[in-house]
Amino acid sequence: MTVDLNSDVGESFGRWVLGDDEAMLGLVTSANVACGFHAGDPSTLRRTCFIAAQNGVAVGAQVGYRDLAGFGRRFIEVEPTALADDVVYQIGALDGMCRVAGTRVRYVKPHGALYNAIVHHEAQAEAVVAAVRDYDSTLPVLGLPGSAFLGAAEKAGLRTVREFFVDRGYTPEATLVPRSQPGALLHDPEGVTARVLRMVTDGVVRAVDGSDVRVEAESACVHGDSPGAVAMATAVRAGLTAAGVELRPFVDGPAG
Amino acid sequence: MTVDLNSDVGESFGRWVLGDDEAMLGLVTSANVACGFHAGDPSTLRRTCFIAAQNGVAVGAQVGYRDLAGFGRRFIEVEPTALADDVVYQIGALDGMCRVAGTRVRYVKPHGALYNAIVHHEAQAEAVVAAVRDYDSTLPVLGLPGSAFLGAAEKAGLRTVREFFVDRGYTPEATLVPRSQPGALLHDPEGVTARVLRMVTDGVVRAVDGSDVRVEAESACVHGDSPGAVAMATAVRAGLTAAGVELRPFVDGPAG
Amino acid sequence: MTVDLNSDVGESFGRWVLGDDEAMLGLVTSANVACGFHAGDPSTLRRTCFIAAQNGVAVGAQVGYRDLAGFGRRFIEVEPTALADDVVYQIGALDGMCRVAGTRVRYVKPHGALYNAIVHHEAQAEAVVAAVRDYDSTLPVLGLPGSAFLGAAEKAGLRTVREFFVDRGYTPEATLVPRSQPGALLHDPEGVTARVLRMVTDGVVRAVDGSDVRVEAESACVHGDSPGAVAMATAVRAGLTAAGVELRPFVDGPAG
Amino acid sequence: MTVDLNSDVGESFGRWVLGDDEAMLGLVTSANVACGFHAGDPSTLRRTCFIAAQNGVAVGAQVGYRDLAGFGRRFIEVEPTALADDVVYQIGALDGMCRVAGTRVRYVKPHGALYNAIVHHEAQAEAVVAAVRDYDSTLPVLGLPGSAFLGAAEKAGLRTVREFFVDRGYTPEATLVPRSQPGALLHDPEGVTARVLRMVTDGVVRAVDGSDVRVEAESACVHGDSPGAVAMATAVRAGLTAAGVELRPFVDGPAG
Repeated sequence: MTVDLNSDVGESFGRWVLGDDEAMLGLVTSANVACGFHAGDPSTLRRTCFIAAQNGVAVGAQVGYRDLAGFGRRFIEVEPTALADDVVYQIGALDGMCRVAGTRVRYVKPHGALYNAIVHHEAQAEAVVAAVRDYDSTLPVLGLPGSAFLGAAEKAGLRTVREFFVDRGYTPEATLVPRSQPGALLHDPEGVTARVLRMVTDGVVRAVDGSDVRVEAESACVHGDSPGAVAMATAVRAGLTAAGVELRPFVDGPAG
Repeated sequence: MTVDLNSDVGESFGRWVLGDDEAMLGLVTSANVACGFHAGDPSTLRRTCFIAAQNGVAVGAQVGYRDLAGFGRRFIEVEPTALADDVVYQIGALDGMCRVAGTRVRYVKPHGALYNAIVHHEAQAEAVVAAVRDYDSTLPVLGLPGSAFLGAAEKAGLRTVREFFVDRGYTPEATLVPRSQPGALLHDPEGVTARVLRMVTDGVVRAVDGSDVRVEAESACVHGDSPGAVAMATAVRAGLTAAGVELRPFVDGPAG
Repeated sequence: MTVDLNSDVGESFGRWVLGDDEAMLGLVTSANVACGFHAGDPSTLRRTCFIAAQNGVAVGAQVGYRDLAGFGRRFIEVEPTALADDVVYQIGALDGMCRVAGTRVRYVKPHGALYNAIVHHEAQAEAVVAAVRDYDSTLPVLGLPGSAFLGAAEKAGLRTVREFFVDRGYTPEATLVPRSQPGALLHDPEGVTARVLRMVTDGVVRAVDGSDVRVEAESACVHGDSPGAVAMATAVRAGLTAAGVELRPFVDGPAG
Repeated sequence: MTVDLNSDVGESFGRWVLGDDEAMLGLVTSANVACGFHAGDPSTLRRTCFIAAQNGVAVGAQVGYRDLAGFGRRFIEVEPTALADDVVYQIGALDGMCRVAGTRVRYVKPHGALYNAIVHHEAQAEAVVAAVRDYDSTLPVLGLPGSAFLGAAEKAGLRTVREFFVDRGYTPEATLVPRSQPGALLHDPEGVTARVLRMVTDGVVRAVDGSDVRVEAESACVHGDSPGAVAMATAVRAGLTAAGVELRPFVDGPAG
């Protein structure tokens, strides 16, 4: 049994440091690296990609809205063609940083409000898909099972990779419990580890109402910038490894 | 006899249009396309690269300081390592736009205050060179003959391409007459055309003091965003062609 | 009979020039000056406010979303409290420029996507109102008759000023014909002038279906950055003046 | 005996938090609040100004170069007139945030590379002075004794306030030891406190070579965003208070 562990990194900007990228890049197998539009200055990106390459961690382009002040967490009604161009720009920029750091962009994962928007927003979902396809149609995309984004990506012939959020509560319909409701966020590393293990081995997760719900995913997402992020990722990695689950990137071949 | 004609394009930003890129891309053989740091939004860049590719015009990355408000025309004392990272980011981003437009970045030319700074500023010159070399050591760089930039590029093993400014006055020492002095700018298309022709055929240009000065260059730069830019480029192209000078990109192989 | 003529100005940014502010400031009586978030660098704002003050034109703060790349024309789902803070910042900044230019901000008019959003978006409308009220509760707000924005402003005790768009088509319900539909934009200066005159004198405008519809407004908006903007404003001003309509700012007292 | 204690605050930006403003605003008497060009989003500024007002801390506009990516720490060769306009814009914006937070901008202190540049750069120093004078000629400016900035401010009739850096080493000529040299930074809260006390009571500080040097200053600057910032400010405040030195803003009247 194998699973991928992904996390957001490269989200510092100039003087402002966010998260402990070095520690996270010692724990995960795929790194969603910001691309400069919602976070991530070029020097941060280069350093992050370099450490990822050193550690055999696969780099993904974490593309977002052009919104530093909002950290990409506010929906923007960008025209689809402009959005596609913004996404190509970001992938290209990060791919440049990867190139000088000894690796390449290996997949694409939208960030924040864009991630949430394209669960349902067909036009923006198709724009992101078109950008990836036009840039490199062999790049897989990482996203929410059942989202408009993964649907459009499949239709376009892209490889789609579904992810599971290790510290988010699930509804009986296998969607995420909204952050405004109880049970949305899980904080206990042991409980979370057991949960991931069950998802990996049985494809099942316990929903907020106590029922079991099927969630099939090739990648498990751990948060990168919360206070307990490193401790949580450490626990999850240790628990999976102890149970004989192999952690490895979902992309093929050498990550570095 | 051959010469390359280069010009700055892709310098619009969102609602703000600058220059007549479509016309210029029908006249020049090499296009210095902005990369988003001093000008150029992703949609502008994609469209510009697409037209360049259609027309067989070679695309160069016109890298600059991160300064939209100043259009990259203000010197910034960026740390060399940060500058190198900014340059890699810009080349990568434009290369991404090229990729979806059917071409690739074929050379690098610094813009504005960065161009001027690295005539003398060794550390910044070396930073730009390091960025190009790390990104793709086969990319030529376009710059001012005798500059610290071309010197550092040569030392690093990059191909260097010298340029001549068709509408700028030259001193007897073959440097540009500062814009604050009389004779700095030439406005007469016929005079300028004769001047370029002489530079191409004899490697000589008339300096402000009336003396002749040697200026050897493989590329002639015509300005892209001044009111008479298209008329000037049209005259220069027609004059050179009529005199049997072949206009073609200085980079090898198909430009598109 | 009197009416105010308002237009957007101050929308240049650094190297990029937009509109002919000097000409427009010789024609209108109220100037909606951009505040730097969607357009307008500090030097542009200062110069614009200075000319407005010289000409006795009232300066309004044309507040928008923080979105230079989109010129404030894309809806952004900003949190209301953050939006209110963004609006205060913009009013304060422009008021500073006014202060050194010999005038003050005299009213507030939202721009672009924000203007459109708060026709219906109650939370954002209330945020803009709260910002104006907190900054200076004597400042009037300029907006669309019947909008959530003017409704919230009235409730908060702000003076509200309704505007009429001289070159936009109206539906029989007195709303604007969407730009995607025929009849949305009027281009004929003579027809437009007759239309404004009728609105001023009779409070009536001919709708796209040929019916007459009541539109009461204290200010008529002419566009500032379209190719024919100056010609249109010149015609409207001349037509109104010839008909004995006095053009003057809707704000009380000396504008400069 | 009295002295003012000043520190940089309001330097967070969106998702990125910097420094413990709430703690610092309980210790200092003057707060140099960022204005959005090098740091500080509107919501951060409003909150910061509000807490300052609550605590009777005087708010100063900490104006800087337009350079978020560089945190205003990189010299930019801005044209003096553009710099003056940038400074007016920043003061106005912060004054707007102050206004809704129950206070006003009470003084101006340049930040980072601008602070350093105008120690010697006459044209930029005069530009900052012109901006303050044009905005409100009763606003004092805070700066380095002997700087071109304070010289130009005096000549322009502005009140000048000299500051002392509590944790920086001084040369026998009363200038700061460059950060690249040993003795540039002092880390021991007790030693620093004794040093400030001696400066306040005797107008003397021990230089790096062991000699005593005269340093007269009305304000002592404590750093706001270093790891030990709060501990250092706490020690200095306690030491001064214990010695009977009164801590109060250098500006007159109620700070809030």
